[in-house]
Amino acid sequence: MTDGERDLVLTRSLDAPRGALWRCWTEPELLKQWFCPKPWFVSEARMDLRPGGEFFTRMNGPNGESFGEPGVFLDVEEGRRLVFTDAFRPGWRPSGRAFMTADVRFEDAGAGQTLYTARAMHWSAEARDEHEKMGFHEGWGKATDQLEALAQTL
Amino acid sequence: MTDGERDLVLTRSLDAPRGALWRCWTEPELLKQWFCPKPWFVSEARMDLRPGGEFFTRMNGPNGESFGEPGVFLDVEEGRRLVFTDAFRPGWRPSGRAFMTADVRFEDAGAGQTLYTARAMHWSAEARDEHEKMGFHEGWGKATDQLEALAQTL
Repeated sequence: MTDGERDLVLTRSLDAPRGALWRCWTEPELLKQWFCPKPWFVSEARMDLRPGGEFFTRMNGPNGESFGEPGVFLDVEEGRRLVFTDAFRPGWRPSGRAFMTADVRFEDAGAGQTLYTARAMHWSAEARDEHEKMGFHEGWGKATDQLEALAQTL
Repeated sequence: MTDGERDLVLTRSLDAPRGALWRCWTEPELLKQWFCPKPWFVSEARMDLRPGGEFFTRMNGPNGESFGEPGVFLDVEEGRRLVFTDAFRPGWRPSGRAFMTADVRFEDAGAGQTLYTARAMHWSAEARDEHEKMGFHEGWGKATDQLEALAQTL
């Protein structure tokens, strides 16, 4: 199995400038507005934008579901790239399970557009398939629509 | 289970200065001289001392055994702390298995001595137990003797 076979990837050309998309990803009050496909919503978001820094979100469903997703950032390239994972808690403590690492990239595409790539990389083919069945493509797709719409208002 | 229950820890006061121990850990030609308990030996060592940078060693046994151990650094505090893991390959690619993260700390202890703490943190209790049975305490203990002896010659 090649590395890529454990990945799920969303690539889109978004009609919003790179800087606005970056703000939507890195300012907690903005992130909360788009990160979950509605009617789900984010009630808490904490981010400490540096390698090893915390990235925590709590996602809530319309029937009272609530999932806290703890993780850390691995790499932060201002305005261009965010890498984070659920494999660690702050202090580089291994988490309960190393499920996935996300690599999100923002590239200028001219005319106020941005080439946006969100890659979810998994430790196993089983985790990849589980993530796909959880609705990766639909969920990340809808969230990306929300991201684009919010960025256009900034 | 608390976090600490998935850890294996070696703590020793070493009779060598912090800077010399740091060199033994971070200069590949020095690392090769102490990192494996003899008669095992390291034939290759590559280290790119930055978060996300490669840390690769190849360990060889007296009967022709050969194990390449790929990983990356997560944190590098010059002279004081090294954190690395087998959970990733360079480029933040998840590895085949997230087994452990090592957190190695060096603290001045006066009179040319150094308080040395090497902590192996695992993703599961099973991985911790497997590592203990592989001979963590004896292996890391012997390697630490070799480290101390080498540092005293610098």
